[in-house]
Amino acid sequence: MLTGDLIIGSSFVKRERTFAAENPATGEALDTSFSCATEEDVRLACELAGKAYQTFRNLKPNVRAEFLEQIALEIEACGDALIERTCAETALPPARITGERGRTTGQLRMFAEVLRKGEFQQAKFDRALPDRAPLPRPDMRQVRIAVGPVAVFGASNFPLAFSVAGGDTASALAAGCPVVVRAHPAHPGCSEMVGRAIQRAVQHCGLPEGVFSLLGGTGHEIGAALVKNPEIAAVGFTGSRAGGLALSEIASNRPVPIPVYAEMSSINPVYLFPQALKNSAEELGKGFAASLTMGAGQFCTNPGLILGVAGPDLELFIKSAAKELKNIAATTMLTSGIYANYSAGVAELIENDKVSLVARGPEGGLNACQSALFATDAHSFMADKSLSHEVFGASSLVVECDDMATLRKLSAGLEGQLTATLHLREGDIEDARTLLPILELKAGRILANSWPTGVEVCETMVHGGPFPATSDVRTTSVGTGAIERFLRPVCYQNMPTDLLPSALVI
Amino acid sequence: MLTGDLIIGSSFVKRERTFAAENPATGEALDTSFSCATEEDVRLACELAGKAYQTFRNLKPNVRAEFLEQIALEIEACGDALIERTCAETALPPARITGERGRTTGQLRMFAEVLRKGEFQQAKFDRALPDRAPLPRPDMRQVRIAVGPVAVFGASNFPLAFSVAGGDTASALAAGCPVVVRAHPAHPGCSEMVGRAIQRAVQHCGLPEGVFSLLGGTGHEIGAALVKNPEIAAVGFTGSRAGGLALSEIASNRPVPIPVYAEMSSINPVYLFPQALKNSAEELGKGFAASLTMGAGQFCTNPGLILGVAGPDLELFIKSAAKELKNIAATTMLTSGIYANYSAGVAELIENDKVSLVARGPEGGLNACQSALFATDAHSFMADKSLSHEVFGASSLVVECDDMATLRKLSAGLEGQLTATLHLREGDIEDARTLLPILELKAGRILANSWPTGVEVCETMVHGGPFPATSDVRTTSVGTGAIERFLRPVCYQNMPTDLLPSALVI
Repeated sequence: MLTGDLIIGSSFVKRERTFAAENPATGEALDTSFSCATEEDVRLACELAGKAYQTFRNLKPNVRAEFLEQIALEIEACGDALIERTCAETALPPARITGERGRTTGQLRMFAEVLRKGEFQQAKFDRALPDRAPLPRPDMRQVRIAVGPVAVFGASNFPLAFSVAGGDTASALAAGCPVVVRAHPAHPGCSEMVGRAIQRAVQHCGLPEGVFSLLGGTGHEIGAALVKNPEIAAVGFTGSRAGGLALSEIASNRPVPIPVYAEMSSINPVYLFPQALKNSAEELGKGFAASLTMGAGQFCTNPGLILGVAGPDLELFIKSAAKELKNIAATTMLTSGIYANYSAGVAELIENDKVSLVARGPEGGLNACQSALFATDAHSFMADKSLSHEVFGASSLVVECDDMATLRKLSAGLEGQLTATLHLREGDIEDARTLLPILELKAGRILANSWPTGVEVCETMVHGGPFPATSDVRTTSVGTGAIERFLRPVCYQNMPTDLLPSALVI
Repeated sequence: MLTGDLIIGSSFVKRERTFAAENPATGEALDTSFSCATEEDVRLACELAGKAYQTFRNLKPNVRAEFLEQIALEIEACGDALIERTCAETALPPARITGERGRTTGQLRMFAEVLRKGEFQQAKFDRALPDRAPLPRPDMRQVRIAVGPVAVFGASNFPLAFSVAGGDTASALAAGCPVVVRAHPAHPGCSEMVGRAIQRAVQHCGLPEGVFSLLGGTGHEIGAALVKNPEIAAVGFTGSRAGGLALSEIASNRPVPIPVYAEMSSINPVYLFPQALKNSAEELGKGFAASLTMGAGQFCTNPGLILGVAGPDLELFIKSAAKELKNIAATTMLTSGIYANYSAGVAELIENDKVSLVARGPEGGLNACQSALFATDAHSFMADKSLSHEVFGASSLVVECDDMATLRKLSAGLEGQLTATLHLREGDIEDARTLLPILELKAGRILANSWPTGVEVCETMVHGGPFPATSDVRTTSVGTGAIERFLRPVCYQNMPTDLLPSALVI
């Protein structure tokens, strides 16, 4: 079923240099040699995308809606083979991958719905005022159009929902932008299957071949060439801070700079307010441990920082979390590289003499994420920037603050985050009210009495936040709002009806 | 009336280093020594802005609306003194400055209206679905909030409408962002009067002093320090390409990068289609000459490039424009520097042996813009990038194309523009239809049968466009949409009603 080919428009292409996928649970290479794209492949894919752009962006929205729905059907038609291969490449369990497939096809269908509603075009009208003094006003209309071909970087931690046919691809295609995907090398078989599904949908819908290409390989050269290519008008990326910053730099140094929508790093502070702790310390500990270890902690919204006022209630929370963590089996991480980074991050915290190790979860097999819970005081946290770095995986740090004022001060010094979470009860409202204005400047999403690891795909979701959580605080990469990243306004003044875009003809 | 002071919050500040304004029509220094801000002044103004931000952004929208309206009243209360001083500093005629004052106060009142309508907050709701399987959906709400203090760079060519209380300031204040203005040194007296008007409005409305500061001076250091300051969250700029690019580079190299909304350069191609030329070549020549020379050609949307198919009709247009230009008196440019750049740009075109000089307008006095019309062929234009550079002032280049195919090819190679204009008749519709998809990718506003120099302040206006017309193609700096540049979305999940922003309480 898999050939290891690149997908460049309607062509399947083999290259001499290849790589294999690794099963992170066994360390063994999986079948199939995957071709590494060359810079010429990047050029070809972008050229095709540029050629397809005019046709694709000008399709009636319902035609693109049918295309997105067809992609969803084609992904479903991959059946268990897709689930099995993805599980083998990522060590994520079948139930998770099955759920993630549902989220992926759900996103595609949600954007089909967005297209059918038509509001994404934001058509606006200022009617002519021929009698206005001193000068008449001409007829003015505005609509949003697709920005151009988009480069999408598949993320390792969502092999379906934020990879080849994930949220970035779905929102860019919905907007009318052809997409060139730089496949993540950690799940090349999954990527090829999904890429072929998209390509079948392109053909089924009779669209120009350049609407979609899939370039695989290892190393940074392909991605750099892709972002540099003059046909590319925007970039979607989910991954490390180093990766996102490198792409942003390339993009801003182009002769024509382009926006990079990079979702990079976040430690997602969780605030445990006094009354909540007093009433529910044990239960909160359990909930936290479940959120921390879900998917081996490999979520952008993983709770990596817990903040509360020091005292017996916070101690009880820590004890409860520690006890719970000891009972949650270690699960395999996505790649040996991610595991190595996780281990190094945890080792650094263990060696930090201002930090105490509270608990570790059970050890596991190869590349398994042994969870880790640390504690420190607010003064030490504020004095040592390294303590606010993300350790990607199931590691978290509890910071015990002297009082609410210290907690606020610490919060004001935090970097930008995807989320901030409040656990609170009636009696905590006033404390929360003094903290909220700070948190609104630090995070894209603020939650109460829940855990940040669930990310709803809906109209109001903001999966974004101030730098360095993302590179563009004005946007979201999850939910219907994601389409706005790939649209720009155009104004038509006094334009004959025959020449107006159909959304502006009334 | 003028003191030459900086305005830092509620303080008026004198500095040792000063400069004087020059009357460009006489070359003489005008009265008043204006203080040059120091880096410490920048720090102080930004610190005050940071302190004012939380209060200001959280005001009820109608309170900020009253503030904007009060600014408009205070500007009007400056009376003729403001008109006279601005005319002396810019050499723009009183009628123009009076009209521009109306546009400026109109913009402030328009944003007051935007605030009262409340839609700018884009409140969105996804109601809880407690019975949803497999997981319930929490209550989710989203609202836009102010991004933070904004640095605004006054533009020389709109001393009122795009300077101290201009479109950038009005939209940023409307959004809830305190503003630190870097005054343009070409009109410091006008800037001080308007700055004092804003400061009086701050006091009248009882707002925190840091909502507004005004920093004057010469050189680039103040602006650079302002964009580097960590309190600043976004930048509004209208000016040269070199200036916009320099600020963008500073902003993207900050530890926390921020967006720069720079409106930079545009030659605003005007297409003369065959039937329009056939019917109205003479009239088009007259209309063009009027648009080109208005305000000494010192508009971002000045028609600097005329495109048509070679032939007797286009020749007739050129003759008509040439004749008309010879009858339009030269008017003084804004500064001796702008005049020097204009003269150098025109001299370069005169020396270019692929370009022929068609006409020059009358000479004038000191710093007067002697209009210039040039012609060349499409091949020469495409072969020489320098021919597509903006010459700021009343200089334009007619490019004679062999046929519509050449015209389309040339258009596809153009840089990004603020506007593209079509002059066409019924019989030109099909030709225009083949060109329009290209122009939509090149410009933010497309006009038919009018001239680009009038920029409506309305809901549908796009005063923006692909790089290098602006640094951010997704935005507009004129019209109600300008406020969106200074807002970002925040999502509230499962938040107690007591803690929700008022726009999200229903």
